[in-house]
Amino acid sequence: MKASGPSSIAARSLPATARRRVVAWMHGLALVTLWVLAPLARAQTDPLPSWHDGAAKQAIIAFVKDTTDKASPRFVDPEARIATFDQDGTTWVEQPNYAEAMFAFDRLAVELAKRPRLKLVEPFKTIMSGNQAAIAKLTNEDLLKVAAALTHSGLTVDEFRTIVADWLASAKHPRFKRPYTELVFQPMLEVMQYMRANGYKTYFATGGGQDFVREYAQKVYGIPPEQVIGSAAETSFGYAKDGKAVLTKTHKMLYVDDKTGKPIAIHQMIGRRPVAAFGNSVGDQQMLEYVQAGDGPRLMVLVHHDDAVREYAYGPASKVGTFSDALGAEAKRRGWVVISMKNDWKRIFGWE
Amino acid sequence: MKASGPSSIAARSLPATARRRVVAWMHGLALVTLWVLAPLARAQTDPLPSWHDGAAKQAIIAFVKDTTDKASPRFVDPEARIATFDQDGTTWVEQPNYAEAMFAFDRLAVELAKRPRLKLVEPFKTIMSGNQAAIAKLTNEDLLKVAAALTHSGLTVDEFRTIVADWLASAKHPRFKRPYTELVFQPMLEVMQYMRANGYKTYFATGGGQDFVREYAQKVYGIPPEQVIGSAAETSFGYAKDGKAVLTKTHKMLYVDDKTGKPIAIHQMIGRRPVAAFGNSVGDQQMLEYVQAGDGPRLMVLVHHDDAVREYAYGPASKVGTFSDALGAEAKRRGWVVISMKNDWKRIFGWE
Repeated sequence: MKASGPSSIAARSLPATARRRVVAWMHGLALVTLWVLAPLARAQTDPLPSWHDGAAKQAIIAFVKDTTDKASPRFVDPEARIATFDQDGTTWVEQPNYAEAMFAFDRLAVELAKRPRLKLVEPFKTIMSGNQAAIAKLTNEDLLKVAAALTHSGLTVDEFRTIVADWLASAKHPRFKRPYTELVFQPMLEVMQYMRANGYKTYFATGGGQDFVREYAQKVYGIPPEQVIGSAAETSFGYAKDGKAVLTKTHKMLYVDDKTGKPIAIHQMIGRRPVAAFGNSVGDQQMLEYVQAGDGPRLMVLVHHDDAVREYAYGPASKVGTFSDALGAEAKRRGWVVISMKNDWKRIFGWE
Repeated sequence: MKASGPSSIAARSLPATARRRVVAWMHGLALVTLWVLAPLARAQTDPLPSWHDGAAKQAIIAFVKDTTDKASPRFVDPEARIATFDQDGTTWVEQPNYAEAMFAFDRLAVELAKRPRLKLVEPFKTIMSGNQAAIAKLTNEDLLKVAAALTHSGLTVDEFRTIVADWLASAKHPRFKRPYTELVFQPMLEVMQYMRANGYKTYFATGGGQDFVREYAQKVYGIPPEQVIGSAAETSFGYAKDGKAVLTKTHKMLYVDDKTGKPIAIHQMIGRRPVAAFGNSVGDQQMLEYVQAGDGPRLMVLVHHDDAVREYAYGPASKVGTFSDALGAEAKRRGWVVISMKNDWKRIFGWE
C-alpha cells in the first residue's frame, strides 16, 4: 500500500498528457482487441480456452447452455439474462491494494503538494510516510474515504473522468510493472464474452467507485457505463460561468456497494434479480445469496486466490478480498461454484 | 384527487386475483401490440403517423436522421445514443392527478380500513374526506410521501410488484374510464419506437416511483426495468423465514428524481449524458439544460398541454406538471422544441 510520490500528472504540460493518453489507450485497446479476438477464433470448439476442463468450467458452460436452450426446463428468457460481476479480485488483481486506492493516494499526493501543512496531520502523515507497518494499522476503507473525500469532491464529473484516464495511462502495478487495465483475468474475460454471446447482459457490481470503473469498463471489459454499479457519492447540480449545466462530485456517499449494499444497489440500478453472479470475497456473499433466492436456474461463483506464483494466495487474514472460512463453508453448503485460480485456470493474464 | 374506496384487492381470494391479473395484462398486451404494429406498417413512409407535419415533427425527424447518418457532421456513435423521457404529462396523462398518487391513496384506503383510528388524524382525515377544496390546500408531494411511507414501506420488493400489478389491472381513470396504462400518448410512443429503431436507448427519467414504473414500463412503453430512472426509497437486506435473501422497501428516500434531481439521477444510473430529452414541466427543466450542455447535436423537447377537449389544458396555475411562463421563455431562448398537443398531434391516444 505504499503511496507513490506526487504523480507526474501535475507536472506535465497538457498537450504532452493528451498525446501520452491517446498512445497509451490505443496500446491498451490493441491488447484488448487481441484478447477478444484470439479466443473467438477457437470459440466454436471451446468458449473458455484459458480454463482447465474441471468442475468450475463445466458448471459455467452447462448453465449457459441450459438457460439458452429453448427445449430445456432451465431455459431463461433473453430479457432476464442478467449476470453481475464483482471487479476487484474477481475480474482483476486487487493485491497488494485496490487499483482505486492507489489512484486515490496518488491524487492525495498531488493535493498534499499543494497543501503541505496537511502532511503534518493524521491520517495523512501516516499515509505519506510510506511506513507499511503504520499504514497497516489504518483500515483500507477509512483511508480510501479520506483520500476520496479530499481529492474527488469539488470536481465536475467530466474533470474527474479526465483525471482517472490520465492516471490509468501512467500508473503501473508495483509487482507486474504493467498498467492496471492489463491485470485483468483472461479466464473471466472469456466468461463475460461467452455469456454476452449467449444473450446475457453483463454488469459490474463492485465496491469500487462507480465513476472510476465507468471510465475504463467499456474498453477493458466490454461493459458500458450504464452497466457499471459501484459505490457512489452524490453529485450536485449547478451552472458553470458560461451558464452551462454541470454536475459536481460531493463527498456525501449515496451508497456503498459492498456486502448487503450489493443486492440493494443491484435492485436500485437494474430493478430485477440477476440469474448469475460472480464474486471472490465476503463482500460478495449477500449478492450471491440474493441471486440464489430467485426462482429458476441460478449460477453463483466465487474466485479463490490460491496461486501465489502466478498471482497471489490469500484468505481469511487478508486486508482486501477476504475469503473467510465461513464463506467457504457457505459456498459448500449452498452449492456455489468455487474457482481455484491455481487449478482451474491455464493462464491468468492475456499477455502470459 | 378523490381517493376511491378501499380497494377490492384485500377482499379478493388470491387465485381469483391471479386469474384476473393475467387476463387484464393479456388484454393490455394485445392493445399495446396493436399500437406497436400499426405504426410500423407505415414506417417506411412516415415514422410519426400520429403527428401533423409541423415544426416539432420536423425537428425530431431531422435530429434522428442527422445523428444516424455517418456522412453527417451531426452523426452520433451508436453507444452514445441515449434519450431520456419524463413520464407523467410527457408520455401519459397526469391530470387530475398522477396515476401513482391514485395508487398510493387506494393503498392508503386499504391500510386505513385496517387501522381506522388513523382516519381521525391529519392529514389522513382530509385525504379520506373526499373534500376537494380541503385536499387542494395540501401539497401533492407531501400527500404522496405520507401515503407511500405508510403503505409501501415494510413490503418486500416482490410483494410491492404484485400490489402494483393488481392495482393497474383494476384501477380506472376518473374521466376516461380506462386503465391508466391505456392513457399513453400515441405520438410519444411513436417517437420512442422511432428512436429505438435508429439505435437509441430510451430511458425514463420520471419523478414517479422507480419500482412503480418498472412494473409496466416494458409492456406499455417497451422500456425494460433497468432503463427506468425514478424517485427511489432505500431497500434493506434481510432473510425470510426460509433463509432466503429478501429486499424490503423502507420509507427513507434515496433520491427524488425531479428538478435538479433528474440530471443527478441520470448521471447516477446511466453515467453518461443523454443527447435527447423530453419533458413537459418545470420538473424537467434541469434535465433539458443538462442534456443541452453536452457537446455535439442535442434535442430538447417540451410537451405543452393545450388541448382541453381531447386531454387537458393547463399551465402555470396547475398543481401537477407546471408549465410556467419562465419555462416557456427559457424554451424559446434556448431553442427547445415545444409540442402543442392541440396542433401537433393528430390523435392523443391509440384507441381514438
